Amino acid sequence: MTTTEGSPALLATLPGEFYTSPTIFAAEQDEIFEKLWFCAARSGDLANPGQFKKVQVGRESVLVVRGKDGVLRAFLNVCRHRGAALCTEPEGQVKRSLQCPYHAWTYALDGKLIAAPNLASLKDASGEGIDRYEYGLVAVALREWLGYAWVCLADDPPSFDDDVIGEVTRRLGDPTAVDHYDVASLSVGRRVVYDVAANWKLIVENFMECYHCATIHPELTEVLPEFAQGLAAQYYVGHGAEFGSGISGFTIDGSAGFETLPGVTEDQDRRYYAITIKPTVFVNLVPDHIIFHRMYPLAPDRTIVECDWLYTADVVAEGRDVSRSVELFHRVNEQDFAACERTQPAMSSRAYRNGGVLVPSEHHIAEFHEWVVSRIGEHPRADDPR
Amino acid sequence: MTTTEGSPALLATLPGEFYTSPTIFAAEQDEIFEKLWFCAARSGDLANPGQFKKVQVGRESVLVVRGKDGVLRAFLNVCRHRGAALCTEPEGQVKRSLQCPYHAWTYALDGKLIAAPNLASLKDASGEGIDRYEYGLVAVALREWLGYAWVCLADDPPSFDDDVIGEVTRRLGDPTAVDHYDVASLSVGRRVVYDVAANWKLIVENFMECYHCATIHPELTEVLPEFAQGLAAQYYVGHGAEFGSGISGFTIDGSAGFETLPGVTEDQDRRYYAITIKPTVFVNLVPDHIIFHRMYPLAPDRTIVECDWLYTADVVAEGRDVSRSVELFHRVNEQDFAACERTQPAMSSRAYRNGGVLVPSEHHIAEFHEWVVSRIGEHPRADDPR
Amino acid sequence: MTTTEGSPALLATLPGEFYTSPTIFAAEQDEIFEKLWFCAARSGDLANPGQFKKVQVGRESVLVVRGKDGVLRAFLNVCRHRGAALCTEPEGQVKRSLQCPYHAWTYALDGKLIAAPNLASLKDASGEGIDRYEYGLVAVALREWLGYAWVCLADDPPSFDDDVIGEVTRRLGDPTAVDHYDVASLSVGRRVVYDVAANWKLIVENFMECYHCATIHPELTEVLPEFAQGLAAQYYVGHGAEFGSGISGFTIDGSAGFETLPGVTEDQDRRYYAITIKPTVFVNLVPDHIIFHRMYPLAPDRTIVECDWLYTADVVAEGRDVSRSVELFHRVNEQDFAACERTQPAMSSRAYRNGGVLVPSEHHIAEFHEWVVSRIGEHPRADDPR
Repeated sequence: MTTTEGSPALLATLPGEFYTSPTIFAAEQDEIFEKLWFCAARSGDLANPGQFKKVQVGRESVLVVRGKDGVLRAFLNVCRHRGAALCTEPEGQVKRSLQCPYHAWTYALDGKLIAAPNLASLKDASGEGIDRYEYGLVAVALREWLGYAWVCLADDPPSFDDDVIGEVTRRLGDPTAVDHYDVASLSVGRRVVYDVAANWKLIVENFMECYHCATIHPELTEVLPEFAQGLAAQYYVGHGAEFGSGISGFTIDGSAGFETLPGVTEDQDRRYYAITIKPTVFVNLVPDHIIFHRMYPLAPDRTIVECDWLYTADVVAEGRDVSRSVELFHRVNEQDFAACERTQPAMSSRAYRNGGVLVPSEHHIAEFHEWVVSRIGEHPRADDPR
Repeated sequence: MTTTEGSPALLATLPGEFYTSPTIFAAEQDEIFEKLWFCAARSGDLANPGQFKKVQVGRESVLVVRGKDGVLRAFLNVCRHRGAALCTEPEGQVKRSLQCPYHAWTYALDGKLIAAPNLASLKDASGEGIDRYEYGLVAVALREWLGYAWVCLADDPPSFDDDVIGEVTRRLGDPTAVDHYDVASLSVGRRVVYDVAANWKLIVENFMECYHCATIHPELTEVLPEFAQGLAAQYYVGHGAEFGSGISGFTIDGSAGFETLPGVTEDQDRRYYAITIKPTVFVNLVPDHIIFHRMYPLAPDRTIVECDWLYTADVVAEGRDVSRSVELFHRVNEQDFAACERTQPAMSSRAYRNGGVLVPSEHHIAEFHEWVVSRIGEHPRADDPR
Repeated sequence: MTTTEGSPALLATLPGEFYTSPTIFAAEQDEIFEKLWFCAARSGDLANPGQFKKVQVGRESVLVVRGKDGVLRAFLNVCRHRGAALCTEPEGQVKRSLQCPYHAWTYALDGKLIAAPNLASLKDASGEGIDRYEYGLVAVALREWLGYAWVCLADDPPSFDDDVIGEVTRRLGDPTAVDHYDVASLSVGRRVVYDVAANWKLIVENFMECYHCATIHPELTEVLPEFAQGLAAQYYVGHGAEFGSGISGFTIDGSAGFETLPGVTEDQDRRYYAITIKPTVFVNLVPDHIIFHRMYPLAPDRTIVECDWLYTADVVAEGRDVSRSVELFHRVNEQDFAACERTQPAMSSRAYRNGGVLVPSEHHIAEFHEWVVSRIGEHPRADDPR
């Protein structure tokens, strides 16, 4: 499988089994979601010491918690004694420690074991008193960027700068371009969670191309007329799709949005930029707000997508009406996810045993396919004569 | 396993795992439902050009569609581009083409790719414009008989005459016998769909024998007294069970049915003939109507059964009351499927590890078992010491 | 894994996969639930000839039925002909035989085949009339003790005296201690069925230790103050936890219960004894009643627990109010099962790949782990590099 940029020839997609096989999905859990940086939570949702959020990362339940020192940390949500989950609620606030409700083993917000019945008398195998960090919570690497907490389950995490920040730079062509939007300073104006009956890669592929835009996105192509031509914004480095001449803002009816974000440049104004940060994040930049998608792949055929609409703190604090800008991308989301859901069943058909085809304006999707294969390895194909 | 016709000795059934193993069910999908002729739809349900029906055949979603030329055809329900399902509704009517709602690839009713965004510029791997039949819908073989569309997913379908028509001839003993009923000319007076929690083979075996009739079919044995003796109609070539002396018609209370079908002979009058067309069809012939069963095996322990009651076009068009004849076999169906459902759980018991037994009046079921084994091969048995 | 009694060092638990793996659960079905004595039913629930109960034992459906001779027997719930379940209701009463509702094969209450259509003419493979015991119901070994029917699916059952009675003797330190309660003579005052989303071994481990008592059982530690120290009653042979000084009875509020059971000795009065009879029974002895738990493990992560509160026949017959004594252990059950359910999810976490730890007061649980491993064998561990 090679990408021949500019060639008009059809390229092959991945074979159907990549979207249905539990073995391949397990390999993706091992080598992608549990080895790479995974965007887990909006930092601003955890503003106060003791606030925590429980997040599914690959197959693991991870707690993201703000310490007394104001630092965000992440831990596996498992007591080191007999394994009870420390937290079962999706989010909450503790006073100063995390206590297991089974046998009352108690951990500081930095993970250290600080109390347990008879703790002083407990000895390790060599007969010494136990090390309170060794029997503390299992730590998970955490980095904050764009106002989100990104975690990594690997013992030796890959470079955040290359893998996450680098993806954005490679897409926008300029390392400072995203800084103009100051995404970390924004507030969540709306969050919608979608439960999609499709493989996560179908959702990535859908996001990467615009060959479908004319067919399923009437509202979006009204605002961004060049999308009707089918060339994805992501096809060209640095390119952002321009608003139509009669369009005032990135809203469901093209009416004006909010004030342009303070740092946005003239080049960036009246343009839409879409960025895919593999494996599970999509960022959409428009002059007055950001649409930020995070995926949680749960099964070969099921993916949760959480989508945040981010505005300046003022817009949110003043309760200004965000519904017209939310409605535009909410419809796009529903249109896209419906398309992915009607594609999933055919992945197990003999008609898709060797995959489908990519037209020229979709050729960059082949790079995503190559990346997946490079992560999980070539899988032995069933030698099935049917 | 050998059939010793006439011997009174008990014969063994298939071992229980044949009714529960996902591996064996997958082999049946491969070698039976996806290789043999599979009865998919009533042709009359697709009377007009552009009418289509979506049917599950083995593991594949198949579209049966009437062309502008009036010909019925079948295709895999998968767009050749990125695999979206062309149709998600169970049935419908298009104007003149099937269009994929994802990227608008459009196919004529004969499967040819006739339109797509930028179609003219698409090239195949050798740089040529793409072949519109090669990138057309994947065709599935189709034959019409008895007013039904039978499809076959095999690249090289077996002989329809031997496998389908031949089964009927071998049962009735006369190649013209079924023609007297002119089944293709009849109309559907009632259709009932049953969702049965049992393996498809239990349903076949139940249909093939009448040792259970005295126990579970009081209404049927009232109409067909010889069934109380337990010898199945299918046991003897050409034999049809005779109506009881006080019985006027094949109805729930033995009251008169409709006029005898025009071609039915005197020999056939006042008789009931049951025919099994392997793998998934049962035909029941009585003088004034036909009861036609089609199975859709979905899982080792789940089978959908669709049952049509067919009458002359006049009976249906005039809205005459078919409820007394429908009620008789509807009760038989419910009685039979309840028996199959209470048998399914024991298939995984150690008591059935080597199967059960066939009494002499069930010995012809052993031929069905031999046929299944010949199709899917002997399966390695777990060497389980428990 | 060795138990070093008295050593304060932490011991390892079983690895997490023992609580999640379908392979290990199948081995437990084979080697534990389907090979050892399994407590199936309260004998008193089957007082009359022809009364039966359908019980899940491992993967098998077993009928426990009282014969015309007053003897309790057990059989696989499978007709020997074509495998239909003889009984689908959970319990019931037949007149004098069990008849299969499919083809009317009929069995006496001792399992003998006594009737079937054309039975007299049926021959076995050698041409002889069939043996009515050989084609009778498949018998399952049954013993009665403590007023319960214990069954064993093994062809050659292990010693009931060693495995069942011996467990109680080893716990109480005296073979006659349990006799003083005359458990067989008691009546069921209340039965509660719990559906627990946890592996059966987590429930056993929870029952065996009291390190959790101070944290989750406020009512129980009020009645049994020594439990607040965390040493399980089962830790010392023969020890029973003593009621607190202000406690009158084993009730939710410490108020008086019923008259002390007639045979209970002075040593046993005002004490609580907990006994684990592996694999699936817990017995709780208090002076005026017995709490008897039976587990039905259905899946690696699902276990049904049936709990009987047993009182003298008089207490039950007179309708005296048992709610205060029921309420105490019903709350303990709900507290324990909630703890097990919050532990189950972490069994698949990388944090529990090598298990957790046992503190000194839990060290006897390691013996249970050794017993499990000795029954099912060491399992190959996935050599998983993640």
